[in-house]
Amino acid sequence: MTTVYLNGRHLPKEQALIPVEDRGFIFGDGIYEVVRVVEGRIFAWDAHAARMANGLAGLRIDATGADSATLRAACERLIADNGLAGGEATVYLQVSRGAAPRTHHFPPAGTPTTVYAAASPFKVNPALRTQGARAITQPDIRWARCDLKTVNLLGPVLARQAAVEQGAYEALLHRDGMLTEGAATNAFFVLDGVLRTYPLSHYILPGITRQVIMDVLGAIGIGCDERPVPLVDLPRVSEVFVCGTTTDVTPVVAVDGRAVGAGTPGPVTLRIKEAFEQRLYAK
Amino acid sequence: MTTVYLNGRHLPKEQALIPVEDRGFIFGDGIYEVVRVVEGRIFAWDAHAARMANGLAGLRIDATGADSATLRAACERLIADNGLAGGEATVYLQVSRGAAPRTHHFPPAGTPTTVYAAASPFKVNPALRTQGARAITQPDIRWARCDLKTVNLLGPVLARQAAVEQGAYEALLHRDGMLTEGAATNAFFVLDGVLRTYPLSHYILPGITRQVIMDVLGAIGIGCDERPVPLVDLPRVSEVFVCGTTTDVTPVVAVDGRAVGAGTPGPVTLRIKEAFEQRLYAK
Repeated sequence: MTTVYLNGRHLPKEQALIPVEDRGFIFGDGIYEVVRVVEGRIFAWDAHAARMANGLAGLRIDATGADSATLRAACERLIADNGLAGGEATVYLQVSRGAAPRTHHFPPAGTPTTVYAAASPFKVNPALRTQGARAITQPDIRWARCDLKTVNLLGPVLARQAAVEQGAYEALLHRDGMLTEGAATNAFFVLDGVLRTYPLSHYILPGITRQVIMDVLGAIGIGCDERPVPLVDLPRVSEVFVCGTTTDVTPVVAVDGRAVGAGTPGPVTLRIKEAFEQRLYAK
Repeated sequence: MTTVYLNGRHLPKEQALIPVEDRGFIFGDGIYEVVRVVEGRIFAWDAHAARMANGLAGLRIDATGADSATLRAACERLIADNGLAGGEATVYLQVSRGAAPRTHHFPPAGTPTTVYAAASPFKVNPALRTQGARAITQPDIRWARCDLKTVNLLGPVLARQAAVEQGAYEALLHRDGMLTEGAATNAFFVLDGVLRTYPLSHYILPGITRQVIMDVLGAIGIGCDERPVPLVDLPRVSEVFVCGTTTDVTPVVAVDGRAVGAGTPGPVTLRIKEAFEQRLYAK
């Protein structure tokens, strides 16, 4: 029986129900995280917890009941109770502003938030990781606070759906002529021999995997220029990879049906991938 | 006892619960409407139903169980069952893509959508309508598909909250230097003696009240230039009003603490307001 966490209780998934007036349902008024679990160890917990706290503060959602220690304990029990301590897993966490009569403005202070978490088994797709993935490009139609990990996710939903329908794994988004990130990943590019990625700003998510990669890059002596890559330069890009909590470092070998570089994962990508995976799987 | 409609059933509001995996909650993946009810008559039903159908098609959400006749019947029963046939009321309707294991891309075909409706008593605030409302200006940080009435509403939520905190009724949004619309209303301006409003596009909601007003304008012989008003021209604007299903025609008499025109509802606004209310309250 799958159990989930809802507002302080662990209960069977089928019993995890929320009122229709929950502002998560009515306004997408919530913040979420997905964490990766390897043999019972939550990867980069502190970074995820800090980002969640930052997102809740950004939306001014009360963080009571959603502090790092409480959420971590919920995750650990979900992993244990659902028999996921042995292999790989993810835990999804979400905090919404809670249920209240519908008003656009915030409900009265003291309205209880909704705190939800659920664990799932996770299986890496080895073909994607090793042989690389296909991507498409899509206009970045999202709002101007992509730095907050909110559940206002229709932009990514529609972009990913377009990717899937074209047989691709990810959609690379572009705004104002610049490649920003993937629909649900951050994106890195090698252009003129230099690794580049979009700078932290309101226009991309501050990915935890991105952050770990930045740290790894220092360790392996690869520089990274945090500067946008123009969409028009995509044909000249020699390597692309996307990264994220369930994507790790995934090489992108074709974009819009056109091979990236030689059409196989490039040397810079492979070095970063290896170094990242050493971190992820370190005991 | 308040009853609501959920997936074909009328049930007590307290029993109207949805799974945590509902894509409305997880992605804001849904479309909504609010309709106005006067003495049991739903105002402009066909226009609302058409907009909902258009929104569902825009997000490619299956409209089964959310056709005009089914939704209308649900609304009418909600109005009757909740004793709202005598005065004024609103009905909120929402259709989400339903509950499914979390993937950004669409769930398998056949995943049942969630169809929800709830009626509430409504009371016009006569002071706002007669004396006018205050507004503030806010950057329009929403996504680029504001024409779809989705529940990805954090932009409006944050803008309205800012308005409320500044003692204002509405936030007038501006994008690329142009006033687009209110956080939850359409906005009209009189500039150089000419009535103007933002043209229908991906950047504003095609408001039903806006549509009725356009029709009313023809009847009373007032022209309207569907052309954006630059934010920098706001100090020269002589009248502002906002409109919507619960706002009707509400004069805006001050923006960012500065009086609009004489600081009282202007003559063009009052003529439109009167003509609109005749339509709304016509038996």
